Amino acid sequence: MKKHNFNAGPAILPDSVLEKAAASVIDLNGSGLSILEVSHRGADFTAIIERAEALTRQILDLPDDYAVLFLSGGASSQFFMTAMNLLDESGKAYYVDTGSWSSKAIKEARLFGQVEVLASSKDRNYSYIPKGYEVPSDGTYLHLTSNNTIFGTQFHEWPESPIPVVCDMSSDIFSRPIDLSRFDLIYAGAQKNLGPAGTTLVIVRKELLGRVNRQLPSMLDYRNHIDQNSCYNTPPVFPIYVCMLTLEWILEQGGLSALEERNRQKAELLYRQIDVNPLFRGVAETADRSWMNVTFVATDPEREKTFLKTCQEAGCVGVKGHRSVGGFRASIYNAMPLESVRVLAEVMEAFAHQHA
Amino acid sequence: MKKHNFNAGPAILPDSVLEKAAASVIDLNGSGLSILEVSHRGADFTAIIERAEALTRQILDLPDDYAVLFLSGGASSQFFMTAMNLLDESGKAYYVDTGSWSSKAIKEARLFGQVEVLASSKDRNYSYIPKGYEVPSDGTYLHLTSNNTIFGTQFHEWPESPIPVVCDMSSDIFSRPIDLSRFDLIYAGAQKNLGPAGTTLVIVRKELLGRVNRQLPSMLDYRNHIDQNSCYNTPPVFPIYVCMLTLEWILEQGGLSALEERNRQKAELLYRQIDVNPLFRGVAETADRSWMNVTFVATDPEREKTFLKTCQEAGCVGVKGHRSVGGFRASIYNAMPLESVRVLAEVMEAFAHQHA
Repeated sequence: MKKHNFNAGPAILPDSVLEKAAASVIDLNGSGLSILEVSHRGADFTAIIERAEALTRQILDLPDDYAVLFLSGGASSQFFMTAMNLLDESGKAYYVDTGSWSSKAIKEARLFGQVEVLASSKDRNYSYIPKGYEVPSDGTYLHLTSNNTIFGTQFHEWPESPIPVVCDMSSDIFSRPIDLSRFDLIYAGAQKNLGPAGTTLVIVRKELLGRVNRQLPSMLDYRNHIDQNSCYNTPPVFPIYVCMLTLEWILEQGGLSALEERNRQKAELLYRQIDVNPLFRGVAETADRSWMNVTFVATDPEREKTFLKTCQEAGCVGVKGHRSVGGFRASIYNAMPLESVRVLAEVMEAFAHQHA
Repeated sequence: MKKHNFNAGPAILPDSVLEKAAASVIDLNGSGLSILEVSHRGADFTAIIERAEALTRQILDLPDDYAVLFLSGGASSQFFMTAMNLLDESGKAYYVDTGSWSSKAIKEARLFGQVEVLASSKDRNYSYIPKGYEVPSDGTYLHLTSNNTIFGTQFHEWPESPIPVVCDMSSDIFSRPIDLSRFDLIYAGAQKNLGPAGTTLVIVRKELLGRVNRQLPSMLDYRNHIDQNSCYNTPPVFPIYVCMLTLEWILEQGGLSALEERNRQKAELLYRQIDVNPLFRGVAETADRSWMNVTFVATDPEREKTFLKTCQEAGCVGVKGHRSVGGFRASIYNAMPLESVRVLAEVMEAFAHQHA
């Protein structure tokens, strides 16, 4: 039985992408070679990486002064690479702390310069997005985490910033249109809306680079990857290929506005159920609720195990919440069909009837 | 038509591995989920990474004091990570320079401490493995590159070393038994004998770590990856899965002794053809010839294009040599069948008859 996959990441991918990817593991475009066996310098892969970049530019309507990179190492490597490439030891960066991933980014950046936490929602276990702060103009950059997978919060409005903005969009990139004029460096691990684990998208305004004094190992200097179109060394070929397929799928769906509308429908369906159902309670503040990761708990914690078992029986997997929040988390990324969200909402409704 | 894939890397993988990998992209072990969609913290992937580690230990007969890691970032990231983790600024490391990859490793290590090139074969375009040097006992480590993909040379005997040995085995790991007592840190990009591009195997004697004073970004400290069994962050799930399948295949073939014998046969077949064929000449010194990458040139350079076309027509792909050597390179990794090597040898023989 095909499952309803609510995993937080690695996460659900479109069926058509999986089918094409599986076929290419046997034979890529009739080449007689598997996608796993082709040279990263050959014509087949060159076409793939160029198309992945072109699709990214098209979907995001990206100006030419931004570079597009498909790197390895995950967003966790970007936590230090962003600071290493942008922040001088005498410089200062401002971070908004909206959860575990922000906190990790802050910790890594501190190795490279002064870091000030400008705002934080730690006081209420990251259940909201901080607001009402001013971004000082003396910083090298401001760092945000657009969506917080663990806590189920998401920026729906961006702070005004007089300084460049670096944003970790790992868990909501390509889920809605982005106002590019607000961002100078965006990074995103692929394994939510973009592809499988193993590659990380980095979008960076080129003029930001080359301003720090420190000597960087070649693999950690964005400029080397830009110069070689993400092929400075052997890139993660297959993960990038699947990203290209997923980007094609995004276009076929009608692009980011269409996906935003669908994601809104899915999120509203689930949050409505949470709000009317007496057995469940949402975790995040209403205004800051994530459209990607819906976090909720049972009003009676005794019922948590039973509900998880009920989900399992209905083919809904990955619904267990992260240990720092508890309860439940339904991740409903781009590839998650409305139908699967409806199944989960119905399971919740039936559960209430049964246990009320 | 299925090709004879002589690519240098990413390279040929066993057909049975490709078939299992393709099936799992649709459904992993009947779970109802694709290998691209499962959580890296879930039972499915935990079993995979544990089995990949256990197979590595079994095949290499690895003592417990070595850790086994599947990281991302390629061997190119290990060029700096090894030095960053092992070499203090006051320390000195010795490197043997046997080609492009060694040279890159040397360049990156210089960012972290004193680096002395103990021996080099640069004087004759890296066509041999330097010998007859003494390894001083005042070094933190000695760095070797066991097989030189571009130049077609390979260590067949190891230098005696009074200090720990770090070895880049990217292009010949698992091709022959390794005397583990000679090595303290081994790294290898997967994309030759081990799997697809996207993960890098690191085998390290744990007591070597934690001796440097510098502060490391979390993702660059081997100890964090050891503590979390290669799941400190989301690892490259699919590449690691394919490595696990390839490691299973290696066991099925009879392990490293059986593969060594088969690799010897394949290399001898091709080198014999090169030596008897008046139209071709080997590039590497006979004693140092690689069993993985067979480099050769046409005695008359005018014939190079014609020969490459002939190869193409016979379904032999990836035979063009690297630009720093020219001519031809046939990479004949573990998964390359003897039959395909025979096809190439016959193409060479027929070419000689035709053009003699």
